[in-house]
Amino acid sequence: MAASPGAFARHSFGTQVRRSPYSEAALRWGATGFSVYNHMYIPRDFGDQVQNFWNLVDEAILCDVAVERQVEITGPDAAEFTQLLCPRDLSTCEVGQCKYVILVDADGGVINDPILLKLAEDHFWLSIADSDVILWAKGVAVHAGLDVTITEPDVSPLQLQGPKSRDILCAAFGEHLRDLRYYRFVEHDWDGVPLVISRTGWSSELGYEIFLRDGTAGDRLWEHLMAVGGPLGLHPGHTSSIRRIEGAMLSYQADMDLSVNPFELGMDRLLDLDIEADFVGKAALRRIRDEGVSRRFVGLVLDGAPLEGSNDDRWPVVHDGEPVGYVTSAVYSPRLDRNIALAIVADAASAIGTTLQVTAGDGSRGAVVSPKPFHDPKKRLAATT
Amino acid sequence: MAASPGAFARHSFGTQVRRSPYSEAALRWGATGFSVYNHMYIPRDFGDQVQNFWNLVDEAILCDVAVERQVEITGPDAAEFTQLLCPRDLSTCEVGQCKYVILVDADGGVINDPILLKLAEDHFWLSIADSDVILWAKGVAVHAGLDVTITEPDVSPLQLQGPKSRDILCAAFGEHLRDLRYYRFVEHDWDGVPLVISRTGWSSELGYEIFLRDGTAGDRLWEHLMAVGGPLGLHPGHTSSIRRIEGAMLSYQADMDLSVNPFELGMDRLLDLDIEADFVGKAALRRIRDEGVSRRFVGLVLDGAPLEGSNDDRWPVVHDGEPVGYVTSAVYSPRLDRNIALAIVADAASAIGTTLQVTAGDGSRGAVVSPKPFHDPKKRLAATT
Repeated sequence: MAASPGAFARHSFGTQVRRSPYSEAALRWGATGFSVYNHMYIPRDFGDQVQNFWNLVDEAILCDVAVERQVEITGPDAAEFTQLLCPRDLSTCEVGQCKYVILVDADGGVINDPILLKLAEDHFWLSIADSDVILWAKGVAVHAGLDVTITEPDVSPLQLQGPKSRDILCAAFGEHLRDLRYYRFVEHDWDGVPLVISRTGWSSELGYEIFLRDGTAGDRLWEHLMAVGGPLGLHPGHTSSIRRIEGAMLSYQADMDLSVNPFELGMDRLLDLDIEADFVGKAALRRIRDEGVSRRFVGLVLDGAPLEGSNDDRWPVVHDGEPVGYVTSAVYSPRLDRNIALAIVADAASAIGTTLQVTAGDGSRGAVVSPKPFHDPKKRLAATT
Repeated sequence: MAASPGAFARHSFGTQVRRSPYSEAALRWGATGFSVYNHMYIPRDFGDQVQNFWNLVDEAILCDVAVERQVEITGPDAAEFTQLLCPRDLSTCEVGQCKYVILVDADGGVINDPILLKLAEDHFWLSIADSDVILWAKGVAVHAGLDVTITEPDVSPLQLQGPKSRDILCAAFGEHLRDLRYYRFVEHDWDGVPLVISRTGWSSELGYEIFLRDGTAGDRLWEHLMAVGGPLGLHPGHTSSIRRIEGAMLSYQADMDLSVNPFELGMDRLLDLDIEADFVGKAALRRIRDEGVSRRFVGLVLDGAPLEGSNDDRWPVVHDGEPVGYVTSAVYSPRLDRNIALAIVADAASAIGTTLQVTAGDGSRGAVVSPKPFHDPKKRLAATT
């Protein structure tokens, strides 16, 4: 949304959309395009989406993801209330542990897919995708009869992702971080600036998130990481649509919303429907489990010339002349030399190998249902712990 | 966010942000800049913000405001539940009537300021500003024990605003609409396409909103209005920051959010705290009423050269060397030949005539607290019925 360092002036329309603590730094380091996510600007372009992808998979990138706002739940009943929001067993979650959770409404529709961080027995963060989870949580709390406080604290994450991210992290903050386990976090004092550092991300690569707990230090933190990391292979960048679609990682609003349930998404493993604790959507999810679903989230490989950029609309999918669903996300992967896509299609059209037709922005293309993730050297998705 | 007809390609980053049913038409008619609001693109620039202002106040403009999504509440307990969300007495609201309402959370913080439309005794729309009211409403409903259905229907509003809007509306849909009263609406069948037409808006000018209830007819509706309206003075346009700040109309996220309460905003007249019916926030609002507030929403006139565009960040406000608040919205009004702004400042700095200092994007400026609205020929705000 902005092209010139130091100002969003040319494309700013007031304060309805917030800047992040890293916006100035991102502009200074070459950001040329921004999107909007959780009412805040997010850099989505540094001039070359393909180079950003190679930077991520070969070296490391630093991304402003302050748009991942935190919904903080504290108070005497914080644990019970947080479980009420999450259809996943949190009873074994330890302080210092993260969990990927799918929040659903009373009908089982997806509200968000945050990463949960347990900071203390009565202190949780939900690090959210693009919807106002704070309003959902506050609404559920109105009549829940539980003693909790729900706020959005001054917390702004950065993502440090890529195979060189571990060395860069240790160089920036200390060798003790080298053994940080997957989906674990630690609190860290960086010269008086409070941070939370987790081994999480949204890239399907080795990576970390650095949660800054003092927005006024944003510029300084970015510069520190680039100064230390630059010589070790760190590039300024942005979350890579290419890599996340390769990894079949979901993007809320794009791939799923209230109209979709976790079974359609193949998220069964994230649902603990038989625990004793109550949570919103339990009855609906049990019913859906028992009745089965009529459509499924699948991977597609599309024929034809390389796609230019991402799809900017949901593309209709046809099977034997009948409409069966829509493409949610599509992109050309330079590594796979394939057009890869994610789609929601009727159960009857969802088997691997099924041939389909997709009405892409530039015309009809043949497609075939393909295994996902499209690329997964470790046979594991990053966001499933 | 997009500059070339027919595609958001250059600045699109996938389907995380939705297009509106009017996006193609807006591009075709000259939209050069988009913002994002309720997860959807909204045109905010047709090349000349000042010309758009004059088009609005002298003739009429057509604006894509499909981002005003509707939260639809139906079911046997719809009336009781809708009242539960609204700190305003809805008992006298008639079918066919609109109400401007301030939704608050249990602590009295502002969640949204929608226009409510009562379509039937058990059928309501909340036509929302920029936050996920559907999640709030669904959350409140979880334990409310009321039988309601809450959805986002296929409804996409246009705004037709300006002194010539009445003639254009009648030419487009019939003379029977000439007598449509302020904050009233009618259902209208436009050659088989269902519309709701209300005398509402967000411009402080005479104006209407046309709620399209079939997104596939968006392009056709826009073209019909421009074909009929063009010879009568209709211009493609966008909501005018200049005019709405002149009118001191609030913009959610920009001027208010969860951290602000309606008393601080001077919205006392929209609160019915002594009705028998229950609503969320009643106890908190009564407490705030009794205790009073320590800061207030005020108008400011800023010294110095005309501001360029809008403020893209909240500007600090200082009184006698002490920080006392921040500017939420600021713009140069060509009609008033003044830099006008809205701000939240400490009670002690809020009296008309108080002199302040504002740290604007281009340096410090003197400011004086001034009566608002800044321009109001009718001595009435548009959005207060």
